[in-house]
Amino acid sequence: MRVGFLGFGEAASAIAAGLYEAGVTDIVAYDVAPGPKTSERLALIGRDRLSERAELAGCDVVFSAVTADTCVAAAESVAADLHPGQVYADLNSCSPTVKARVGRVVAASGALFAGVAVMSAVPPLRHRVPMLADGPGALALAERMAAYGMQIEVIPGDVGAAAAMKMFRSAIVKGMEALFLEALLPARRFGVDQRVLQSLSESFGSMRLGELGAYLLERHALHASRRAHELAEAADTIAEAGLEPYAVRGGAERLRWSAQRLADREGVPGSGYEGLLDALW
Amino acid sequence: MRVGFLGFGEAASAIAAGLYEAGVTDIVAYDVAPGPKTSERLALIGRDRLSERAELAGCDVVFSAVTADTCVAAAESVAADLHPGQVYADLNSCSPTVKARVGRVVAASGALFAGVAVMSAVPPLRHRVPMLADGPGALALAERMAAYGMQIEVIPGDVGAAAAMKMFRSAIVKGMEALFLEALLPARRFGVDQRVLQSLSESFGSMRLGELGAYLLERHALHASRRAHELAEAADTIAEAGLEPYAVRGGAERLRWSAQRLADREGVPGSGYEGLLDALW
Repeated sequence: MRVGFLGFGEAASAIAAGLYEAGVTDIVAYDVAPGPKTSERLALIGRDRLSERAELAGCDVVFSAVTADTCVAAAESVAADLHPGQVYADLNSCSPTVKARVGRVVAASGALFAGVAVMSAVPPLRHRVPMLADGPGALALAERMAAYGMQIEVIPGDVGAAAAMKMFRSAIVKGMEALFLEALLPARRFGVDQRVLQSLSESFGSMRLGELGAYLLERHALHASRRAHELAEAADTIAEAGLEPYAVRGGAERLRWSAQRLADREGVPGSGYEGLLDALW
Repeated sequence: MRVGFLGFGEAASAIAAGLYEAGVTDIVAYDVAPGPKTSERLALIGRDRLSERAELAGCDVVFSAVTADTCVAAAESVAADLHPGQVYADLNSCSPTVKARVGRVVAASGALFAGVAVMSAVPPLRHRVPMLADGPGALALAERMAAYGMQIEVIPGDVGAAAAMKMFRSAIVKGMEALFLEALLPARRFGVDQRVLQSLSESFGSMRLGELGAYLLERHALHASRRAHELAEAADTIAEAGLEPYAVRGGAERLRWSAQRLADREGVPGSGYEGLLDALW
């Protein structure tokens, strides 16, 4: 098993070092721009210099770990060295559309493309960090790397599904972080921050977060217009307290959009949250 | 016990009808603009006509249930009829600042002001709908009405605390509704909506919503800048999918603001989410 890295920065070298310890001793590390830590990182995989680009041609799996904005160019720069039977796995944190673009470059070379979404910070977990993979090379990637302890879950669907899952999940979790910040900052001025948190815990007691999301959307169609209005009022209250209500105002705009669209369609959406989503798109 | 209503619309008449059944037979119902349902509503409290404004002077408790934008004017219109010993309870869904303005009008009349936040829809629960009350009249209000089954929780703090609690809680719940909508609409296009919900449930398993909020903020200071960047990327991905990312873009703006402010202050915030909030204000 020979594994190659296109880009040998922090994430790539952490995964490589983990694989090396797990028994992958034949590692190709290619990087156009070595940095001050490169020697130290190479030492962890038993090497003293970076590899030549052409050495990627001999790899069973090539991991691209560059930056989100250079991942298409990186694939193009090595496309001539790729060949059928190889898996080219793009680990970069880019959008589904960009993943698909990389996928087309790789497909043209004959290699199998896997679009990978890395689901947690790499350094502490190294090669064992949970990953989702889609595309024609996903299964081969998961099978080839499982013996070395990599945790790769194959996502059915088009190239981009794994990246989409990561991005939209991230939108919710980090969007909630912003929302709690924006609501609790003024709440604390009124001495009610703890009471707000407690009330939220009481209202949605044992519901898990995904269930709560589905529940909110299931009731959305019935109340969209009133809720849009109430959220706009909450935004005004935050503004009155002296904080620009970026997140809450944006949310009110989204609900207003939805209320308008539901009114235009005059259609009762199908059942469940899925029916609402299908009616709104 | 004589109870008065200033404004006799849907909410007021539902509470009045509940109180009438619970034994408050002496009810004053005053409204400047009777509507088509007024007669029917009056019948539920054993009356056939609306009361004169001056009759509010004889009430132990006066409930104001007009609209958020007329509640100051409504208080001013009856201020001359109010007197010490009465409780004037404002039930309107207005901001903390507006509650405080009503409170000043009422205080000048000598009556005791209670700023009330109605925490659920009135019609199904009528007079038993949960309420929070603040201000100098909150305790007297709760005590006078408890015998008739009203559920009034007294909130310590300035006038406006109850309204703040309701508004900022509403900002979080309805903001989440907007966020789930905005992230799951494009997620469903990629066939990963269910997977996103499931992943959220798995990640935050047994955490209650209030605990999750505190947890997100406790870790915020360490990662604010990276999370702002990642949320902006998620917004770009939603835009790429064809949806204007109102809520997510607003959230990214909030995180960017916070990251900048934390950088400017160079201070490590105190412990817990409270420390972060105090450092950011």
